[in-house]
Amino acid sequence: MVYISRKDVDEMDKIYRINLINSCTGYKSANLIGTKSSKGILNVAVFSSITHMGSNPPLLGFVIRPITVNRDTYLNIKETGKFTVNHIHQSIIADAHHTSANYDSEISEFDQTDLEPEFLNGFEAPYVKGAPVRLGCTFLNEYPILENDTRLVIAEISEIHFNEGIQIADGSLQLDKAETVAINGLDGYALPKLLERFEYAKPK
Amino acid sequence: MVYISRKDVDEMDKIYRINLINSCTGYKSANLIGTKSSKGILNVAVFSSITHMGSNPPLLGFVIRPITVNRDTYLNIKETGKFTVNHIHQSIIADAHHTSANYDSEISEFDQTDLEPEFLNGFEAPYVKGAPVRLGCTFLNEYPILENDTRLVIAEISEIHFNEGIQIADGSLQLDKAETVAINGLDGYALPKLLERFEYAKPK
Repeated sequence: MVYISRKDVDEMDKIYRINLINSCTGYKSANLIGTKSSKGILNVAVFSSITHMGSNPPLLGFVIRPITVNRDTYLNIKETGKFTVNHIHQSIIADAHHTSANYDSEISEFDQTDLEPEFLNGFEAPYVKGAPVRLGCTFLNEYPILENDTRLVIAEISEIHFNEGIQIADGSLQLDKAETVAINGLDGYALPKLLERFEYAKPK
Repeated sequence: MVYISRKDVDEMDKIYRINLINSCTGYKSANLIGTKSSKGILNVAVFSSITHMGSNPPLLGFVIRPITVNRDTYLNIKETGKFTVNHIHQSIIADAHHTSANYDSEISEFDQTDLEPEFLNGFEAPYVKGAPVRLGCTFLNEYPILENDTRLVIAEISEIHFNEGIQIADGSLQLDKAETVAINGLDGYALPKLLERFEYAKPK
Protein backbone atom coordinates (compact mmCIF):
# COMPACT_ATOMS: atom_id res chain seq x y z
CA MET A 1 0.00 0.00 0.00
CA VAL A 2 0.96 3.61 -0.49
CA TYR A 3 1.27 5.58 2.75
CA ILE A 4 0.91 9.36 2.79
CA SER A 5 1.46 11.28 6.00
CA ARG A 6 -0.15 14.56 6.91
CA LYS A 7 3.24 16.20 6.42
CA ASP A 8 3.35 14.79 2.86
CA VAL A 9 -0.10 16.27 2.20
CA ASP A 10 0.90 19.68 3.51
CA GLU A 11 4.01 19.73 1.32
CA MET A 12 2.26 18.66 -1.91
CA ASP A 13 1.85 20.82 -4.97
CA LYS A 14 -1.53 22.53 -4.64
CA ILE A 15 -3.25 20.90 -7.64
CA TYR A 16 -1.91 17.44 -6.77
CA ARG A 17 -3.25 17.86 -3.21
CA ILE A 18 -6.66 19.07 -4.42
CA ASN A 19 -6.94 16.04 -6.73
CA LEU A 20 -5.93 13.55 -4.03
CA ILE A 21 -8.04 14.97 -1.21
CA ASN A 22 -11.12 15.45 -3.40
CA SER A 23 -11.02 11.80 -4.44
CA CYS A 24 -10.05 10.07 -1.18
CA THR A 25 -13.46 10.26 0.52
CA GLY A 26 -15.19 8.19 -2.20
CA TYR A 27 -17.79 8.95 -4.81
CA LYS A 28 -19.76 12.19 -4.59
CA SER A 29 -23.27 13.09 -5.71
CA ALA A 30 -23.48 14.87 -9.08
CA ASN A 31 -26.03 17.67 -9.22
CA LEU A 32 -26.69 20.98 -10.89
CA ILE A 33 -28.05 23.74 -8.66
CA GLY A 34 -30.38 26.14 -10.48
CA THR A 35 -31.07 29.64 -9.13
CA LYS A 36 -32.50 32.96 -10.30
CA SER A 37 -31.09 36.33 -9.24
CA SER A 38 -33.28 39.23 -8.12
CA LYS A 39 -32.45 40.79 -11.53
CA GLY A 40 -33.86 37.68 -13.25
CA ILE A 41 -30.56 36.17 -14.40
CA LEU A 42 -30.66 32.36 -14.31
CA ASN A 43 -27.65 30.57 -12.86
CA VAL A 44 -26.74 26.90 -12.99
CA ALA A 45 -23.68 25.35 -11.34
CA VAL A 46 -22.33 21.86 -10.70
CA PHE A 47 -22.11 20.72 -7.05
CA SER A 48 -20.63 17.50 -5.69
CA SER A 49 -21.35 18.00 -1.98
CA ILE A 50 -25.14 17.65 -1.85
CA THR A 51 -25.86 15.24 0.98
CA HIS A 52 -28.95 13.67 2.49
CA MET A 53 -29.46 15.18 5.96
CA GLY A 54 -32.72 13.58 7.06
CA SER A 55 -36.06 12.28 5.82
CA ASN A 56 -38.60 13.77 8.20
CA PRO A 57 -38.56 16.64 7.52
CA PRO A 58 -36.90 16.03 4.11
CA LEU A 59 -33.58 17.90 4.36
CA LEU A 60 -30.42 18.16 2.33
CA GLY A 61 -27.18 20.03 2.86
CA PHE A 62 -24.26 21.20 0.77
CA VAL A 63 -20.97 22.93 1.33
CA ILE A 64 -20.23 26.26 -0.28
CA ARG A 65 -17.32 28.66 -0.37
CA PRO A 66 -19.45 31.80 -0.62
CA ILE A 67 -16.79 34.41 -1.11
CA THR A 68 -14.92 33.03 -4.10
CA VAL A 69 -16.36 30.24 -6.25
CA ASN A 70 -20.12 29.69 -6.42
CA ARG A 71 -20.75 33.22 -5.25
CA ASP A 72 -23.72 33.71 -7.60
CA THR A 73 -25.41 30.52 -6.46
CA TYR A 74 -24.99 31.52 -2.82
CA LEU A 75 -26.20 35.10 -3.30
CA ASN A 76 -29.22 34.01 -5.34
CA ILE A 77 -30.22 31.48 -2.69
CA LYS A 78 -29.87 34.09 0.04
CA GLU A 79 -31.88 36.64 -1.98
CA THR A 80 -34.71 34.39 -3.10
CA GLY A 81 -34.68 31.49 -0.62
CA LYS A 82 -35.20 29.02 -3.48
CA PHE A 83 -33.05 26.74 -5.59
CA THR A 84 -33.34 23.51 -7.54
CA VAL A 85 -31.20 20.36 -7.40
CA ASN A 86 -31.02 18.45 -10.69
CA HIS A 87 -29.35 15.07 -11.15
CA ILE A 88 -26.65 15.02 -13.81
CA HIS A 89 -27.61 12.51 -16.50
CA GLN A 90 -24.75 10.76 -18.29
CA SER A 91 -25.60 12.58 -21.54
CA ILE A 92 -24.89 16.08 -20.14
CA ILE A 93 -21.63 15.61 -18.23
CA ALA A 94 -19.58 17.92 -20.49
CA ASP A 95 -22.05 20.80 -20.17
CA ALA A 96 -22.52 20.12 -16.44
CA HIS A 97 -18.76 20.34 -15.91
CA HIS A 98 -18.54 23.54 -17.96
CA THR A 99 -20.82 25.32 -15.46
CA SER A 100 -17.84 25.38 -13.09
CA ALA A 101 -16.14 27.98 -15.32
CA ASN A 102 -15.91 31.37 -13.65
CA TYR A 103 -18.45 33.47 -15.58
CA ASP A 104 -19.43 36.97 -14.64
CA SER A 105 -22.67 37.32 -12.64
CA GLU A 106 -24.43 38.95 -15.59
CA ILE A 107 -23.89 35.85 -17.76
CA SER A 108 -26.17 32.83 -17.46
CA GLU A 109 -24.50 29.43 -17.76
CA PHE A 110 -27.71 28.37 -19.52
CA ASP A 111 -26.64 30.64 -22.41
CA GLN A 112 -23.11 29.21 -22.51
CA THR A 113 -24.11 25.53 -22.67
CA ASP A 114 -26.86 23.37 -24.18
CA LEU A 115 -28.49 23.13 -20.74
CA GLU A 116 -32.03 24.53 -20.83
CA PRO A 117 -33.95 26.06 -17.93
CA GLU A 118 -37.47 24.86 -17.28
CA PHE A 119 -39.98 26.28 -14.81
CA LEU A 120 -42.29 23.69 -13.26
CA ASN A 121 -45.36 24.02 -11.13
CA GLY A 122 -44.80 27.72 -10.36
CA PHE A 123 -41.55 27.05 -8.48
CA GLU A 124 -39.43 30.24 -8.51
CA ALA A 125 -36.02 28.75 -9.39
CA PRO A 126 -35.20 27.16 -12.75
CA TYR A 127 -35.00 23.39 -13.14
CA VAL A 128 -32.65 21.83 -15.69
CA LYS A 129 -34.74 20.43 -18.53
CA GLY A 130 -34.32 16.68 -18.97
CA ALA A 131 -32.70 16.01 -15.60
CA PRO A 132 -34.09 12.63 -14.46
CA VAL A 133 -34.59 13.73 -10.83
CA ARG A 134 -35.25 17.33 -9.78
CA LEU A 135 -35.82 18.78 -6.33
CA GLY A 136 -37.34 22.17 -5.55
CA CYS A 137 -35.63 23.38 -2.37
CA THR A 138 -36.17 26.13 0.21
CA PHE A 139 -33.26 27.59 2.19
CA LEU A 140 -33.54 27.03 5.94
CA ASN A 141 -30.21 27.81 7.57
CA GLU A 142 -26.46 28.01 7.11
CA TYR A 143 -23.69 26.97 9.45
CA PRO A 144 -20.26 28.62 9.17
CA ILE A 145 -17.60 25.88 9.25
CA LEU A 146 -14.89 27.58 11.26
CA GLU A 147 -12.15 25.10 10.34
CA ASN A 148 -11.88 26.27 6.72
CA ASP A 149 -14.22 29.22 6.25
CA THR A 150 -16.84 27.34 4.23
CA ARG A 151 -20.56 27.12 4.99
CA LEU A 152 -22.98 24.25 5.25
CA VAL A 153 -26.31 25.26 3.71
CA ILE A 154 -29.36 23.37 5.01
CA ALA A 155 -32.52 23.30 2.92
CA GLU A 156 -35.82 21.51 2.89
CA ILE A 157 -37.07 19.61 -0.13
CA SER A 158 -40.30 21.38 -1.11
CA GLU A 159 -41.19 19.29 -4.17
CA ILE A 160 -39.81 16.38 -6.18
CA HIS A 161 -40.04 15.59 -9.89
CA PHE A 162 -38.63 12.45 -11.48
CA ASN A 163 -38.92 10.41 -14.65
CA GLU A 164 -41.49 7.64 -14.88
CA GLY A 165 -40.05 4.15 -14.41
CA ILE A 166 -37.20 4.85 -11.99
CA GLN A 167 -39.11 4.49 -8.71
CA ILE A 168 -39.53 1.00 -7.30
CA ALA A 169 -42.31 -0.32 -5.08
CA ASP A 170 -40.71 0.56 -1.75
CA GLY A 171 -40.37 4.24 -2.69
CA SER A 172 -36.66 4.24 -3.68
CA LEU A 173 -35.43 5.84 -6.86
CA GLN A 174 -33.19 3.34 -8.63
CA LEU A 175 -30.50 5.70 -9.84
CA ASP A 176 -28.96 3.48 -12.50
CA LYS A 177 -32.35 3.41 -14.23
CA ALA A 178 -32.17 7.23 -14.16
CA GLU A 179 -28.59 7.09 -15.57
CA THR A 180 -27.54 9.58 -12.92
CA VAL A 181 -23.76 9.85 -12.63
CA ALA A 182 -21.44 10.10 -9.62
CA ILE A 183 -18.38 12.33 -9.33
CA ASN A 184 -14.84 11.05 -8.75
CA GLY A 185 -12.64 13.83 -7.38
CA LEU A 186 -12.80 17.22 -9.08
CA ASP A 187 -13.52 16.34 -12.68
CA GLY A 188 -14.24 12.63 -13.14
CA TYR A 189 -17.78 11.53 -14.03
CA ALA A 190 -18.67 7.86 -13.48
CA LEU A 191 -21.77 5.83 -14.27
CA PRO A 192 -22.78 3.35 -11.53
CA LYS A 193 -24.57 0.05 -12.02
CA LEU A 194 -26.54 -1.43 -9.13
CA LEU A 195 -24.89 -4.57 -7.70
CA GLU A 196 -27.32 -5.51 -4.96
CA ARG A 197 -29.85 -4.27 -2.44
CA PHE A 198 -30.03 -5.64 1.08
CA GLU A 199 -32.70 -6.03 3.73
CA TYR A 200 -32.78 -3.89 6.85
CA ALA A 201 -29.88 -5.34 8.89
CA LYS A 202 -30.63 -7.13 12.16
CA PRO A 203 -28.18 -8.67 14.64
CA LYS A 204 -27.35 -12.35 13.87
CA MET B 1 -42.75 13.09 -15.01
CA VAL B 2 -43.90 12.15 -11.56
CA TYR B 3 -44.61 15.13 -9.28
CA ILE B 4 -44.54 14.79 -5.51
CA SER B 5 -45.48 17.73 -3.34
CA ARG B 6 -44.20 18.41 0.14
CA LYS B 7 -47.65 17.49 1.45
CA ASP B 8 -47.38 14.10 -0.31
CA VAL B 9 -44.00 13.54 1.36
CA ASP B 10 -45.35 14.42 4.79
CA GLU B 11 -48.26 12.00 4.38
CA MET B 12 -46.17 9.05 3.14
CA ASP B 13 -45.69 5.81 5.00
CA LYS B 14 -42.47 6.20 7.00
CA ILE B 15 -40.40 3.53 5.23
CA TYR B 16 -41.56 4.66 1.78
CA ARG B 17 -40.54 8.24 2.65
CA ILE B 18 -37.15 7.18 4.00
CA ASN B 19 -36.46 5.23 0.80
CA LEU B 20 -37.50 8.08 -1.48
CA ILE B 21 -35.74 10.89 0.37
CA ASN B 22 -32.54 8.89 0.89
CA SER B 23 -32.28 8.24 -2.84
CA CYS B 24 -33.39 11.58 -4.29
CA THR B 25 -30.15 13.51 -3.65
CA GLY B 26 -28.07 11.17 -5.83
CA TYR B 27 -25.31 8.68 -5.12
CA LYS B 28 -23.61 8.70 -1.75
CA SER B 29 -20.10 7.75 -0.67
CA ALA B 30 -19.74 4.25 0.78
CA ASN B 31 -17.41 3.98 3.74
CA LEU B 32 -16.85 2.03 6.92
CA ILE B 33 -15.88 4.04 9.98
CA GLY B 34 -13.60 2.16 12.39
CA THR B 35 -13.28 3.18 16.05
CA LYS B 36 -12.00 1.76 19.34
CA SER B 37 -13.74 2.36 22.67
CA SER B 38 -11.88 3.31 25.85
CA LYS B 39 -12.53 -0.31 26.97
CA GLY B 40 -10.75 -1.57 23.84
CA ILE B 41 -13.82 -2.77 21.94
CA LEU B 42 -13.46 -2.29 18.18
CA ASN B 43 -16.44 -0.88 16.30
CA VAL B 44 -17.06 -0.69 12.58
CA ALA B 45 -20.13 0.89 10.95
CA VAL B 46 -21.27 1.80 7.45
CA PHE B 47 -21.70 5.52 6.66
CA SER B 48 -23.05 7.11 3.49
CA SER B 49 -22.68 10.78 4.44
CA ILE B 50 -18.90 11.24 4.39
CA THR B 51 -18.24 14.36 2.36
CA HIS B 52 -15.17 16.24 1.21
CA MET B 53 -15.05 19.56 3.09
CA GLY B 54 -11.78 21.06 1.89
CA SER B 55 -8.27 20.22 0.74
CA ASN B 56 -6.05 22.63 2.67
CA PRO B 57 -6.23 21.62 5.45
CA PRO B 58 -7.58 18.20 4.35
CA LEU B 59 -11.03 17.99 5.97
CA LEU B 60 -14.03 15.72 5.76
CA GLY B 61 -17.42 15.80 7.40
CA PHE B 62 -20.25 13.39 8.12
CA VAL B 63 -23.69 13.51 9.62
CA ILE B 64 -24.53 11.51 12.70
CA ARG B 65 -27.60 10.96 14.82
CA PRO B 66 -25.70 10.52 18.09
CA ILE B 67 -28.52 9.57 20.42
CA THR B 68 -30.01 6.61 18.58
CA VAL B 69 -28.20 4.87 15.74
CA ASN B 70 -24.40 5.03 15.49
CA ARG B 71 -24.13 5.88 19.15
CA ASP B 72 -21.01 3.71 19.63
CA THR B 73 -19.20 5.33 16.71
CA TYR B 74 -19.99 8.79 18.03
CA LEU B 75 -19.01 8.02 21.66
CA ASN B 76 -15.77 6.33 20.60
CA ILE B 77 -14.80 9.30 18.44
CA LYS B 78 -15.56 11.71 21.27
CA GLU B 79 -13.58 9.57 23.76
CA THR B 80 -10.52 8.92 21.66
CA GLY B 81 -10.53 11.68 19.03
CA LYS B 82 -9.58 9.16 16.34
CA PHE B 83 -11.38 7.14 13.68
CA THR B 84 -10.70 5.58 10.31
CA VAL B 85 -12.61 5.90 7.03
CA ASN B 86 -12.37 2.82 4.79
CA HIS B 87 -13.75 2.60 1.25
CA ILE B 88 -16.21 -0.23 0.71
CA HIS B 89 -14.84 -2.55 -1.97
CA GLN B 90 -17.41 -4.36 -4.11
CA SER B 91 -16.43 -7.71 -2.58
CA ILE B 92 -17.52 -6.75 0.97
CA ILE B 93 -20.88 -5.04 0.45
CA ALA B 94 -22.90 -7.70 2.33
CA ASP B 95 -20.70 -7.50 5.43
CA ALA B 96 -20.48 -3.71 5.17
CA HIS B 97 -24.27 -3.46 5.13
CA HIS B 98 -24.57 -5.85 8.09
CA THR B 99 -22.63 -3.39 10.29
CA SER B 100 -25.80 -1.27 10.33
CA ALA B 101 -27.49 -3.89 12.56
CA ASN B 102 -28.11 -2.61 16.06
CA TYR B 103 -25.58 -4.56 18.15
CA ASP B 104 -24.96 -3.93 21.82
CA SER B 105 -21.92 -1.74 22.61
CA GLU B 106 -20.04 -4.71 24.08
CA ILE B 107 -20.18 -6.57 20.77
CA SER B 108 -17.71 -5.79 17.98
CA GLU B 109 -19.09 -5.86 14.44
CA PHE B 110 -15.68 -7.24 13.46
CA ASP B 111 -16.67 -10.44 15.33
CA GLN B 112 -20.07 -10.64 13.61
CA THR B 113 -18.77 -10.34 10.03
CA ASP B 114 -15.76 -11.39 7.98
CA LEU B 115 -14.41 -7.84 8.20
CA GLU B 116 -11.01 -7.80 9.88
CA PRO B 117 -9.44 -4.95 11.84
CA GLU B 118 -5.90 -3.91 11.02
CA PHE B 119 -3.72 -1.42 12.86
CA LEU B 120 -1.36 0.55 10.65
CA ASN B 121 1.49 2.86 11.45
CA GLY B 122 0.61 3.19 15.15
CA PHE B 123 -2.72 4.87 14.43
CA GLU B 124 -5.06 4.34 17.40
CA ALA B 125 -8.27 3.39 15.55
CA PRO B 126 -8.69 0.16 13.56
CA TYR B 127 -8.60 0.16 9.78
CA VAL B 128 -10.59 -2.37 7.76
CA LYS B 129 -8.18 -4.88 6.26
CA GLY B 130 -8.29 -4.96 2.47
CA ALA B 131 -10.12 -1.65 2.01
CA PRO B 132 -8.58 -0.07 -1.11
CA VAL B 133 -8.46 3.45 0.39
CA ARG B 134 -8.15 4.16 4.11
CA LEU B 135 -7.99 7.47 5.95
CA GLY B 136 -6.79 7.99 9.52
CA CYS B 137 -8.83 10.89 10.89
CA THR B 138 -8.73 13.19 13.91
CA PHE B 139 -11.88 14.79 15.32
CA LEU B 140 -11.87 18.59 15.16
CA ASN B 141 -15.39 19.87 15.83
CA GLU B 142 -19.09 19.12 15.69
CA TYR B 143 -21.97 21.34 14.66
CA PRO B 144 -25.47 20.62 15.96
CA ILE B 145 -27.91 20.80 13.04
CA LEU B 146 -30.90 22.42 14.71
CA GLU B 147 -33.36 21.57 11.93
CA ASN B 148 -33.41 17.84 12.71
CA ASP B 149 -31.26 17.23 15.78
CA THR B 150 -28.36 15.62 13.94
CA ARG B 151 -24.71 16.67 14.10
CA LEU B 152 -22.11 17.40 11.48
CA VAL B 153 -18.76 16.03 12.59
CA ILE B 154 -15.68 17.74 11.10
CA ALA B 155 -12.37 15.91 11.08
CA GLU B 156 -8.95 16.31 9.58
CA ILE B 157 -7.32 13.62 7.50
CA SER B 158 -4.16 12.69 9.42
CA GLU B 159 -2.87 9.94 7.12
CA ILE B 160 -3.86 8.17 3.92
CA HIS B 161 -3.26 4.58 2.78
CA PHE B 162 -4.29 3.26 -0.60
CA ASN B 163 -3.61 0.35 -2.93
CA GLU B 164 -0.83 0.61 -5.49
CA GLY B 165 -2.04 1.33 -9.02
CA ILE B 166 -5.12 3.44 -8.32
CA GLN B 167 -3.45 6.88 -8.20
CA ILE B 168 -2.90 8.70 -11.48
CA ALA B 169 -0.21 11.23 -12.33
CA ASP B 170 -2.16 14.33 -11.26
CA GLY B 171 -2.69 12.97 -7.73
CA SER B 172 -6.29 11.72 -8.14
CA LEU B 173 -7.38 8.31 -6.96
CA GLN B 174 -9.28 6.65 -9.82
CA LEU B 175 -12.00 5.00 -7.81
CA ASP B 176 -13.16 2.47 -10.41
CA LYS B 177 -9.65 1.02 -10.36
CA ALA B 178 -10.12 0.66 -6.59
CA GLU B 179 -13.54 -0.98 -7.16
CA THR B 180 -15.00 1.31 -4.51
CA VAL B 181 -18.82 1.27 -4.53
CA ALA B 182 -21.37 4.07 -4.18
CA ILE B 183 -24.61 3.89 -2.19
CA ASN B 184 -28.09 4.34 -3.70
CA GLY B 185 -30.58 5.21 -0.98
CA LEU B 186 -30.53 3.19 2.22
CA ASP B 187 -29.45 -0.23 1.05
CA GLY B 188 -28.43 -0.24 -2.62
CA TYR B 189 -24.75 -0.73 -3.51
CA ALA B 190 -23.64 0.27 -7.00
CA LEU B 191 -20.34 -0.06 -8.84
CA PRO B 192 -19.37 2.99 -10.94
CA LYS B 193 -17.32 2.98 -14.11
CA LEU B 194 -15.49 6.16 -15.14
CA LEU B 195 -17.00 7.78 -18.24
CA GLU B 196 -14.75 10.77 -18.70
CA ARG B 197 -12.54 13.33 -17.02
CA PHE B 198 -12.55 16.98 -17.99
CA GLU B 199 -10.09 19.84 -17.90
CA TYR B 200 -10.43 22.72 -15.46
CA ALA B 201 -13.36 24.67 -16.93
CA LYS B 202 -12.74 28.16 -18.32
CA PRO B 203 -15.27 30.62 -19.80
CA LYS B 204 -15.77 30.19 -23.57
